[in-house]
Amino acid sequence: MTGKSRSEPPPFTHQLRVRFGECDPQGIVFNANYLAYVDVALTELWRTAFGSYQAMVDRGIDTVVHEVNLLYRASARFDDVLTIAGGFEPPGRTSAVLRLTFRRGDEDLVEARMRYVFVDTPGLRKTEIPDWVRDGLAPFVL
Amino acid sequence: MTGKSRSEPPPFTHQLRVRFGECDPQGIVFNANYLAYVDVALTELWRTAFGSYQAMVDRGIDTVVHEVNLLYRASARFDDVLTIAGGFEPPGRTSAVLRLTFRRGDEDLVEARMRYVFVDTPGLRKTEIPDWVRDGLAPFVL
Amino acid sequence: MTGKSRSEPPPFTHQLRVRFGECDPQGIVFNANYLAYVDVALTELWRTAFGSYQAMVDRGIDTVVHEVNLLYRASARFDDVLTIAGGFEPPGRTSAVLRLTFRRGDEDLVEARMRYVFVDTPGLRKTEIPDWVRDGLAPFVL
Amino acid sequence: MTGKSRSEPPPFTHQLRVRFGECDPQGIVFNANYLAYVDVALTELWRTAFGSYQAMVDRGIDTVVHEVNLLYRASARFDDVLTIAGGFEPPGRTSAVLRLTFRRGDEDLVEARMRYVFVDTPGLRKTEIPDWVRDGLAPFVL
Repeated sequence: MTGKSRSEPPPFTHQLRVRFGECDPQGIVFNANYLAYVDVALTELWRTAFGSYQAMVDRGIDTVVHEVNLLYRASARFDDVLTIAGGFEPPGRTSAVLRLTFRRGDEDLVEARMRYVFVDTPGLRKTEIPDWVRDGLAPFVL
Repeated sequence: MTGKSRSEPPPFTHQLRVRFGECDPQGIVFNANYLAYVDVALTELWRTAFGSYQAMVDRGIDTVVHEVNLLYRASARFDDVLTIAGGFEPPGRTSAVLRLTFRRGDEDLVEARMRYVFVDTPGLRKTEIPDWVRDGLAPFVL
Repeated sequence: MTGKSRSEPPPFTHQLRVRFGECDPQGIVFNANYLAYVDVALTELWRTAFGSYQAMVDRGIDTVVHEVNLLYRASARFDDVLTIAGGFEPPGRTSAVLRLTFRRGDEDLVEARMRYVFVDTPGLRKTEIPDWVRDGLAPFVL
Repeated sequence: MTGKSRSEPPPFTHQLRVRFGECDPQGIVFNANYLAYVDVALTELWRTAFGSYQAMVDRGIDTVVHEVNLLYRASARFDDVLTIAGGFEPPGRTSAVLRLTFRRGDEDLVEARMRYVFVDTPGLRKTEIPDWVRDGLAPFVL
């Protein structure tokens, strides 16, 4: 569809290190924290696309999470460095799906699929994705 | 399948109140925190089923999250009292699916579908669900 | 000073149960979470004093934390029920000090001393504590 | 005492960026999260001193927080880059005090003073600071 082969590198990559307080008594990252990590990664994607998340909001566009799918294959642990890589599926009219994979070295840990609905600010009402947002997202489409 | 009609009340219900620090600058519950809420609710389900989560672990069984699906219909806000209601699908051999709905009054906010894999302790290796666990879960099957 | 003897019960008490995700790989409550617990307790104090935190904000008064002192004597663990008890020192002109003790049964775990500065809303500028706030706090003064 | 003048740079510095989910509906970092930030910074100090926090634990030494003092002068906001700088006071027999200042650019935001008690692992009983730990901390003493 996008003419990109499987072997191409993903359009977006971010690294972060697991914090002690993000791990639970099982010694692994508490499951909810992967959603917090997705938000950290997306903030960096917005930065590259629009200057910053705030710059996007200042132009009248925000996003809210509508749907989350997470698949946990293996557990991250304290002090692990995680590589979060992926990008957006081709955006729809009012929403776009972000696909991210969490890796530790060559090992796949978690896959995330997030659907974000675009809303106006400050009303947070669903809105069509404007062209400037589509242009900003284009380099991050899988 | 289970012979229960749609209009029956769900087998499990838990209430909690949204904390200030769980909300973000949009003024709504940060999306990751619904997974933390699911864990709180499940802890209470374990309590009713087995005495406590720890009692289950002490008998050699623990769970890890394998798959998460969340659908966000509307946002919870600070100080809202949320009713989390639902139960398990009929368990499989080594995993079981928990379905929970978050409501504020009569309004559906978020739907969660969580697949938990049962593991032994302390090794955290996948294991068949033992009969005593099936018996404990039976009252919570949808 | 306040004419109250040591043996009197504290003017404010709140109970909460420790969540799994609030504990760290040491198996104890992550140290930062006691501040989150203080906020939960204070929310309930505001509810009793003013109807709710939001009711206070709607009347033009909010608070920001200015100073924290925590003394950790012993550790809380997952599923512990904590009793958080205490009250305010006699308020100053623009700030008030909240003293809370965390107990598990008869055991003192953590002592918290928090200084809150009162601010106007939505500007969050320091302001004198108005009489209606003093009146609302009066039953909670140690 | 240490023969170091006020104008010397602090022995330890770490930078981090404020995450969206760490901010509350006031639009500022939720007060508890500064303690989480202190833990992140200390993890990096352990890394420089001992290879990693885990390397210290593997040699039989861990720490628990005994006392916290925080002074909030100004608020950090989402996406701010914070510089966390400071070091340890000369260690005592079984505990050491970490002093850190949070800055955004030239502006002081928060000051933290943390007393850590050294404990053995896995028992978490108070223990004298061994010489190899003192040697590791020496470059970070104020």
